[in-house]
Parts: sequence; structure tokens; C-alpha cells
Amino acid sequence: MPDYQAPVKDMMFVINELAGLKQITKLPGFEDATSELVEAVLEEASQLAAEVISPLNAIGDAKGTRVEDGQVFVAEEFKAAYQQFVAGGWGGISQPVESGGQGLPALVGMAVDEMWESASLAWSICGLLSQGAARAVAAYGTDALRELVLEKLVNGEWTGTMVLTEPQAGSDLAAVRTQAVPEGEEYRLTGQKIFITYGDHDMADNIIHLVLARLPDAPPGVKGISLFAVPKYLINADRSLGERNNVKAVSVEHKLGIHGSPTCVLAFDGSLGQMVGKPNHGLACMFMMMNHARLGVGLEGVAIAERAYQQALAYAKERVQGQAVGHDGPTTIIKHPDVRRMLMQMKANIEAMRAIAYVTAAELDRVAAEPDEARKAAAQARLDLMTPIVKAWCTETGQILASLGLQVHGGMGYVEETGAAQHYRDVRITTIYEGTTGIQAGDLIGRKILRDRGEALQAFIADISQTDAELARHGDTLTTIRAGLKDACQALSGATEWLFGNFSKDANIPGAVSFNFLMLMGTVAGGWQLARAAVTAADYLNADGTDKEFYEAKIITARFYAEQVLPMAGAYRRAIESGSESTMALSEDQF
Amino acid sequence: MPDYQAPVKDMMFVINELAGLKQITKLPGFEDATSELVEAVLEEASQLAAEVISPLNAIGDAKGTRVEDGQVFVAEEFKAAYQQFVAGGWGGISQPVESGGQGLPALVGMAVDEMWESASLAWSICGLLSQGAARAVAAYGTDALRELVLEKLVNGEWTGTMVLTEPQAGSDLAAVRTQAVPEGEEYRLTGQKIFITYGDHDMADNIIHLVLARLPDAPPGVKGISLFAVPKYLINADRSLGERNNVKAVSVEHKLGIHGSPTCVLAFDGSLGQMVGKPNHGLACMFMMMNHARLGVGLEGVAIAERAYQQALAYAKERVQGQAVGHDGPTTIIKHPDVRRMLMQMKANIEAMRAIAYVTAAELDRVAAEPDEARKAAAQARLDLMTPIVKAWCTETGQILASLGLQVHGGMGYVEETGAAQHYRDVRITTIYEGTTGIQAGDLIGRKILRDRGEALQAFIADISQTDAELARHGDTLTTIRAGLKDACQALSGATEWLFGNFSKDANIPGAVSFNFLMLMGTVAGGWQLARAAVTAADYLNADGTDKEFYEAKIITARFYAEQVLPMAGAYRRAIESGSESTMALSEDQF
Repeated sequence: MPDYQAPVKDMMFVINELAGLKQITKLPGFEDATSELVEAVLEEASQLAAEVISPLNAIGDAKGTRVEDGQVFVAEEFKAAYQQFVAGGWGGISQPVESGGQGLPALVGMAVDEMWESASLAWSICGLLSQGAARAVAAYGTDALRELVLEKLVNGEWTGTMVLTEPQAGSDLAAVRTQAVPEGEEYRLTGQKIFITYGDHDMADNIIHLVLARLPDAPPGVKGISLFAVPKYLINADRSLGERNNVKAVSVEHKLGIHGSPTCVLAFDGSLGQMVGKPNHGLACMFMMMNHARLGVGLEGVAIAERAYQQALAYAKERVQGQAVGHDGPTTIIKHPDVRRMLMQMKANIEAMRAIAYVTAAELDRVAAEPDEARKAAAQARLDLMTPIVKAWCTETGQILASLGLQVHGGMGYVEETGAAQHYRDVRITTIYEGTTGIQAGDLIGRKILRDRGEALQAFIADISQTDAELARHGDTLTTIRAGLKDACQALSGATEWLFGNFSKDANIPGAVSFNFLMLMGTVAGGWQLARAAVTAADYLNADGTDKEFYEAKIITARFYAEQVLPMAGAYRRAIESGSESTMALSEDQF
Repeated sequence: MPDYQAPVKDMMFVINELAGLKQITKLPGFEDATSELVEAVLEEASQLAAEVISPLNAIGDAKGTRVEDGQVFVAEEFKAAYQQFVAGGWGGISQPVESGGQGLPALVGMAVDEMWESASLAWSICGLLSQGAARAVAAYGTDALRELVLEKLVNGEWTGTMVLTEPQAGSDLAAVRTQAVPEGEEYRLTGQKIFITYGDHDMADNIIHLVLARLPDAPPGVKGISLFAVPKYLINADRSLGERNNVKAVSVEHKLGIHGSPTCVLAFDGSLGQMVGKPNHGLACMFMMMNHARLGVGLEGVAIAERAYQQALAYAKERVQGQAVGHDGPTTIIKHPDVRRMLMQMKANIEAMRAIAYVTAAELDRVAAEPDEARKAAAQARLDLMTPIVKAWCTETGQILASLGLQVHGGMGYVEETGAAQHYRDVRITTIYEGTTGIQAGDLIGRKILRDRGEALQAFIADISQTDAELARHGDTLTTIRAGLKDACQALSGATEWLFGNFSKDANIPGAVSFNFLMLMGTVAGGWQLARAAVTAADYLNADGTDKEFYEAKIITARFYAEQVLPMAGAYRRAIESGSESTMALSEDQF
């Protein structure tokens, strides 16, 4: 049996029942994405993930990457797998047909991406970044640039990067210093960038770097940042490659995890590039790419947790240790209630995380294709609200779950050869890159909640409340789920009311409560999706007896979450309502 | 400035004000351990930790260990530091004078051990194990064995090990198979043991292995296990060393963390040893050693969190990034409320963890020296109750805090050279070795709560309730602390009542709720100690104005914990009261 087997059945359940594939296929352009087609795509991807990508995970971890004379080399095996991925047309699966992609919904792309990320996170992120770069070029590039690079970015022959960070400017892009000096219709970029994922490698023929830099006359701060496309090799008009552009990998970081992926320091030294979008509007272009990437990173939390779960589950079913209550003689550890508690924690949270990630991806499709303006705007508002939650809650939770997966293995989990420790190391980057949890929480509270006076948030709470009647419809079967969701939703309403009643009294409140607010929303959103799943499952069970085990498990999993996870909502609420005083009161010397 | 500076002031506060050193010094044998003497000892240890041990931390991580022909080698630097430690008499600091130790209270030993563990966990655990072995030999060894090995174990010239685990028997000692065959007055042991910390090394002249094995006629299960002392080198009657005994390190594990410490597979092949304690009573002897070791491992959670905190704090005070509310221009990140939230979370939890660890260590001293039988029994009951909580809650929390420490560093935290990632890797073993969190939770609920029908637990709750009046005495100053503690204590009382009303109805309840019960108790115990600290601090502030900053910080820290951490108690209670149904309901195929 392979190390990783994509949970296609659960993915299809979420896609069909929670994210509403049927509604998506009514939107122009997505008509062909029937449930049957999507399932066939997922099955095919699942095979590639299990057979070709998954074996790379340990290899990349052991081999890492190296840099020689400005060129980075990844594990040989990464290169071969990448070529197979490109040949299969997987790169552009959810890119629009006009960009050279397959035109499938983002919702489907999400499920497929989860597979690559579970199979080998270090390997998968090259493709994810390339698709982000393709989207930015498609949206903001000149016709000439699109003609030159888009097809090859989309099909993965070339890869793309996001080049933001500089040593003095981590999360603070206002401090970017890299210079771009005009030369004819092009620009010459000079500066040093750090933490550039797949900033250089030998898996593809060329790399298109999307680089934030300043024009000579740019105003200070974020309003003086422009975006440039800088190729690794210069590109001739016929798309053949010319000489090497002057951008070099100076070094690769020695990291805690994702060893197989190079994280580069890049030196630009008069490197030739083209502007993408308008002068001084680089941040807007980058954010378009970044919001999509944030959903992708949130999904990484799901993906690593899923793989950690599969491994822990297999171990728990096989490892004999002690004697569980009600059993004679030595038993497998899955029979011990505390081991089950860990596995249920993993299973319930993973299903909740997957659901909110996919449901949010469906909003991307509505934003892209919904002809009705009001519905499109509602989808955009929900997408904006949920993006930081998918990013931060799924990755914070993913870390807890990867750690639980290790714990299930006992002492074996601490031995690197077991593989559980790699998930714990790999997943640790996900709350950091593409904006730390703190950045996401600040985005949520400031731009997504306070700025529209809670309108999008109230719409979200109203939607959750509607599920209550659905739950009530099934009477006793879903009683504790209904009670748990109601309490949690009240905690969110209460915290929201408190926030709007208090934030203007103390400028530190939004920042001080932002993390707890994000965790509260993520916890409730996850519980809501599992409650919806339970309603659907109960409907199926009432209708006929097929797949009984699967649907019963959905109800039990939702119940576990309602009983064991949702009570956290009350704790987050109380932390929020205590405000910022004790957080801010100490002088720096008192720490 | 060194990488680690022991928080001597906070340690002394806990020792004097919370753990009650003054009462300890009234016990026979501890009269000399005045606060002045203890502080001098701590200052001296602090210097050794900062200057000699702390630099080993990164070295051990990078160099690891190696095995050649059955002999393990650690980093050269480890060896030199160990010799300095032995020469300074630090090994036996809290061992009784009659064993050759310094006779200081275990409470003081706890503070000193925290320093070594913060400075270099991988290095420190050799000494901790040796002291455990010394205690077992002192308590159960024959006069001849004590004569032969005790002094050298106590002063650290020789080191000791705990040799329990076998491949088929992790947490389940009933499955131990290693054979011990009598030969004259000695025994020959044969079998393979795994996960033996410092099972071999080159830091000391000899190693005394304390090994669990079975006599040929032993009954099956845990009642057929005996304990043996097996030296690495045979020992002549004059304590000079003879030839090598037939015990070899077969390999060392490739671990996630604590790379500097060898974790060995040991092969015993007719190795000569002496019995320790009575035949078939090995487990009782081992538990005596293990309970002490469990407190030591709980303390490791405190120690790594403390070092992670110091590093994160230094970074947060130095790193300039973004512009905090109410500040002009770029600010250090400690000014951002969400970064403060992380630092306060670390500070408050560390102080709570340290307090419960030290307060529990003081019970060790009461058990050892209290002449009044009733008080001695009460101390023993509290010690037994708190040991699994110190072990598991402090390490579970320590892992969360080490991860927060990494998070404060942003992208730099993921780069190994920063050092934050090492804490995250190192601390991960602490919820596993000396009994996983699941084992501790089962011990708590079964042996420590249900077995005495909740007597020790009710005494604990009654003690907490008494602090309420103390808090009330200070009126408004401590209002939110009082409210938080009251609610949390009620959650614990409620959960206890529920447990006793329900556990007999369903045999899976104790196991299914054990983890949440342990976390609930740890959370409340920590809040209680911080509330006691706040009362003391308020008393000092009322009395005079000295050390105002320190005492004010104590009150603010307790308040932060009451507002942001104690609300978790309610969530744990609700999880407990949902029982075992949804945890146990899935068939194994439904996972």
C-alpha cells in the first residue's frame, strides 16, 4: 500500500455536498465539470500522487538542495516527477482555457492541489507558485508579456516565483528597497531578496520571477512599489531562450523542514525585466496572486494533517500494546480510548478544515464566473472574509494535528525514519510564509471585519444560523451537534458585539484580540461545515441504506467536533472580551 | 550577553513565596537551606549554565553522536563540560548527605536542574538519569552494591541509565522479555533494549545500567519483572574497573531533536549484574525512580519554554518591522499587540508551569523529612496527584510555547541557524519519554483520582478555594484574577462531579476523558499558583515600594493568565462531560 492515498471519497463529498459543484456547473464556462468528470480527474490525480509524488517526500527531506555558482540543484527524483506532472497537463488544471489551462473550477484545483501537497509538500510548492505567477501575468501583464510567457507558465514548462521579501522587510513591504531603473521599454533591477521559494532550481528550462521593486522616482512606502517580471534566461521573440539574465541564487537556507524545496537568497544585479501592471501599483497585483496563494497555504495545513493522520491511523491499527478495556490479551493501540481521542481529533478537524478550504475555493469560481452582480459581490465578500481564516486556522490546526500524529507513534514518532517527525517539521512553515498568522489575523479584523462594519461577518453568522433549522429537522439524531453549533455561534455573535462596542475605545484592541477572533471564526466555520455534512448524511440515511458506514461516520465525526472542539469557542470569546489591557500593560523591561 | 540567563529572581520568588522554603527549612535535615544560601547556590549554578553549558546546545545539535564497535561517542565539548559539572559537585546537589550528596532540598535541585535543561537539554539528561539511578540504588540496593557504586553515581563520576523499553514493549512493561539467569550471587542478563537515553557514551568512566528483566521462573506480566544493576565495566571490590561487561550499544537513533544525546539500542548478552530490590518486585523499584524522573521531564517543558521565551523576547525587542499603533515610524515588533500576545502567553504559562513544578518538588521534601505522619501522608497524596500533571501539562504546554517562540521570529524562525527551531524539535520528546501524555492521563484518572474516590483531588480543590478569600482581600486590584480562578475551579468541581457520577456506567469513560481532565487540572493548578503569586505581590506592594516593577508584573501576568488561559477550563469541562460516545463510536474501518 502506498504511504499516501488521496481521500477521494471525502473530497467528492465536500465538492458535491458542501461546496455545491452542481451550482458551479451552472456558471458559464464550468458547464462540463460534472461530478463524474471531476471524480475521474481526482482518481487520475490520486494515482499520480500515490505512485510518483508520494515517494519523493522522504527523498527530498534527506537529499535537500544545493547551490553551485548561482545555480540551485534539487533532488534528481524531483525533476523526473516534475516532468511527468507537466506532461500530464496538471499544472494548468484550473487555469482558464484562454491562458492555456484546462478551465476546471478552482474548487477542483483545490482538491488536486491537496493531493500534491500531501504527497510531497516540498515538491508541490513549485507548481503552486507557478500558477500564481501565471494568474498575475494573465491579469496584469502586457499583451507582449502574455504572448511570451503565459502558455509556458500555465503548462509548467517554465516556473514562476513571488519575490517580495528583503532582509530589512519581512512582513512589511513598505520597506522594500530593490531598485528598477528604466532602460528602453524594459527595466534593470538591482537588489537582494530573501526567502524566495524555488527562487532557483533545475526542474524547468526557465523561471519567471515576479519581483517587487521601486522605480527611481517612486514615492516612499507601499504606494511606491511596482511589480516586474524578470526571467532567469532572457527570452527571444520566438520564445526560445537567450543568455542568462543577471539574477543569481546566492545561497539556500538550511531549514527546519521542506528540505526538498530550495529557499533562496537571490541577487538581482541589473537584471532585465518588464513591468507588470501600472507603475507604483505593484502591491495590488501581488495581492491578487497572494490571496490565491494564501488559500493554497491554508490547504497545506489540511494536506500535511491528512498525511500525518493516514500514517498515525495505519500505525494505530497495527501496533499491539497493552490491553484495552473490554478486550482479552494484548490489543492494537487504536482500541485504547486516548489513542482514539487523538485520531478523532485529527479526523474531525481535517474534515472541517478541508470543508472550509473547498467551500472558500468555490467562492473563487463564483467571483470568476457569476453573471449576477449581487451574487458575485456576495461571493467576493465571503472569499475576502474567509481567506485569512483558511490560511491561518487551517495551518495553526494542521500543526497541532501533525504533532498529534507524531504522538500516536510514541517513541517511534521521534525517530526520523518513521516519517511522522517530517510532517511536524514540514508543516511548521505554513503559519509563517504567505503572511504569518498574526498578519492574517490583522487582515481579518482590520480589512475584513472593521472596514465594512461587520457586514460580511454578519452575513456569515446569518448563514450559520440557518443551519439550525436543518439540524432541528433531524430531531434527536443531531441534537448535540445542534446544541454545540448554537452555543459556538452565540459565542461568535457575542464576541462580535463586544468588538464593535469596544474597538474604538482603545487602539490596541483590534491587534490584541485578532488572533483569538480568527481562531474563534475558524473553529465555528469548521463546526458549521461539519454540521452541514451531518445534515446531508442524515438525509441520505433517511432516503436509502447505501453507503451507510460513510454517512454514519459523518454524523459521528460532526458530533465529536461539536462536543470536543466547539466548546473552545466560548474560551476564545472570553479571551476576546477581556480586551487588550493585560496584553499591553507590561513595560518592555518587565518582560 | 549569553544565549541563556537563568531567571534566578523568578526562581527565588517561587521557592520562597509559593513553594514555602521557610517551612521546608523547619524539617529535619534541611535547616541550613536558608533563602540566602539557596540564592547563592542558584547564582553559582546560573553562571555555569550560562558560560559552560549553554554554548553546548547548538554544538550538540550539529554534531550529534556516533557509535563504533559498541562504544558511543558524544561531542568532545559535552565531555569537558560534564567533567566541570562533576568537579563542581553539582550532580548530587539534592541527594542525601548519607549517599554522598549535598543534602539540599529537592526544591532547590529542581531550580538548578531547570538551568541545566534550559542550557542544553541534550547534555543535561545524562545527569538527571544518573541521579535517578542513584536514588534507586540507595533505596533498594544491597549494602554491597551501595558500597560499590553509590558515591560515584551521586558525584557523577559514573552515570546511570533506566533500561526499560523493548521493541515489542513500549509503554507496556508487562511485555518485557529480557532474561536474567542466576549465576552465584549474580545474574547474567540477555536481551535487547531500545530507546536507552545515554545508554552508552564516553563522558564518564563507567555506566550503571538499571535494567528490567525476568528471572527464569518469573510469573508472566508485570508481577514477574525484577530490577538489575548491570555495569558497563565490571567493578572490582576496591571500586577499580575491571574488564568490559558484555553490554554493547548496537546503534543510536536518528532523532528529531536532542541530537547531542545518544538514544541507544543496547544488546545484553550474558551481561553480569546484581539484583536491586526483591525478585519480581522490579517495577516498584523502577517506579520510585520513574516518578522522580517524571517531575524532571515536566521541568524540561518549563526549561525549553524558558529558553525559547528568552530568545523570542530578545528578537522581539530588536527586530524592527512595521509601525505599531500609536508610534511614529518603524517600530520593534514587541510593540505590536499580537506579538505581545505571544510573549505574554509564553511568560504567563512559563511562570505557571515553573510554580507547579517547584511546588510539587517541595512535596518531595515533605515526604522525605516531615516527622508528622498526617502531614507526610498529605504531602505524599499531593505529590502523587500532581506528578502526572507536572509531567504532562508542563510538556504539552512547553511544546505550544516553543512553537510560539519560533513564530515570533517569523521566517527567521524556520531557519535552523536562528536556534528557535531547535527548541521546537528538542521539546517534542518531552510528551513521549518517561511515559507519554496518554500514560500520564491514565495514571491520573485511574490511580490518582478514581482509586482514592477523589480524596486527593478534593483536597486540592479545597486548597484552591481558600485562595479566593486572599484574592478578595485585595479588592479591585485582583478582581479579574479572582473571577477567572473561581470559574475555572467551578469547572474542575463540575467535571469531577460528572466523572464520579458517570465513570461506572461506561468502562471507556476514564480513558476517553483522561487527557481533557489532566489538561483541565494543569490549567487550573497553574492559574492557582499565579493567583497566589498575585496575592503575595499585592501584599508586598501594599507593604512598601521596593521591587515595584517586579511585583506589578506578577499581578499583570496572573491577570493575563486568568483572562486568556483560564477560560480553557470551561472548554475542557464540556469536552469531559460529553463522555466517551463520539470518541468510541466509529468502527475501525470507519476511520
